[in-house]
Amino acid sequence: MKNGSGSATRLVALVAVVASSCLAQFGCASAPEGERQNAENAAAIRAVLDSQAAAWNRGDIEGYMDGYERGDQTVFVSGDNVTRGWQTVLDRYKKSYDTREKMGTLAFSDLDIKPLSPFYAAVTGRWQLARAADAPHGRFTLIFRKTSAGWRIVHDHTSSAP
Amino acid sequence: MKNGSGSATRLVALVAVVASSCLAQFGCASAPEGERQNAENAAAIRAVLDSQAAAWNRGDIEGYMDGYERGDQTVFVSGDNVTRGWQTVLDRYKKSYDTREKMGTLAFSDLDIKPLSPFYAAVTGRWQLARAADAPHGRFTLIFRKTSAGWRIVHDHTSSAP
Repeated sequence: MKNGSGSATRLVALVAVVASSCLAQFGCASAPEGERQNAENAAAIRAVLDSQAAAWNRGDIEGYMDGYERGDQTVFVSGDNVTRGWQTVLDRYKKSYDTREKMGTLAFSDLDIKPLSPFYAAVTGRWQLARAADAPHGRFTLIFRKTSAGWRIVHDHTSSAP
Repeated sequence: MKNGSGSATRLVALVAVVASSCLAQFGCASAPEGERQNAENAAAIRAVLDSQAAAWNRGDIEGYMDGYERGDQTVFVSGDNVTRGWQTVLDRYKKSYDTREKMGTLAFSDLDIKPLSPFYAAVTGRWQLARAADAPHGRFTLIFRKTSAGWRIVHDHTSSAP
């Protein structure tokens, strides 16, 4: 029994370590491991945004929309409007940007990626559209979720310079 | 030893349960416990927003700013602008809203509170300012963090109807 108790004590300690490292790092990982994961997640998120801009700039709206989670709960906020649903937004983009001239050239900059948990991250950045007739620009706040397909945007709040 | 092994086996099972419920619920809690925590967190977040609106509507800008985390990293995004730091924003508000007429009456509505982890939540809602001269309105996306002082906004992206 003494021996058994010793094993039990070590296992209780292990439970405490698992529980506390989970609370501290959200991901049941050690601090350096958590930092490595954060860096990996940030790189994956940057890659999604790079792919989105590249898709937009070759006139591929569906490719651009690949950066968003395909679901009814994906949220798009701008001005005083909220739109929900991947398909709804795809349809709207296709209608609003029906020529390459309207699409122009999209660039993202000033990215700030903040991990919120192993499964969520908040991203702020600047967007600029270069077009023959104008050059709209503004900021976005994105919430990314780690899905089975990779990191995807589940919430997009975009604002424009007045 | 048999008895001791049995304890060890049960404890190994407990470690597995703690680890897996942690991954599933982010908070090392059972599903009903997670739901109860989410409901409690949502109520606490609503209370912060109610306090903010009440403070604004009695002309108390510092009280309003109490809803934000007091730190240099608290982020405010609108239009094409990003401002960082609680004090900077407080100073700006005090300058821009130096009369009760300019402050008007603030109301929040259409709140949608989404838990991201035990420590973060995303909140979307509508804001309206009723003033003698105009009635500006728009949407906000807030990221709340559970701090030692309670739930506080660490990221605010606000847009206005054009």
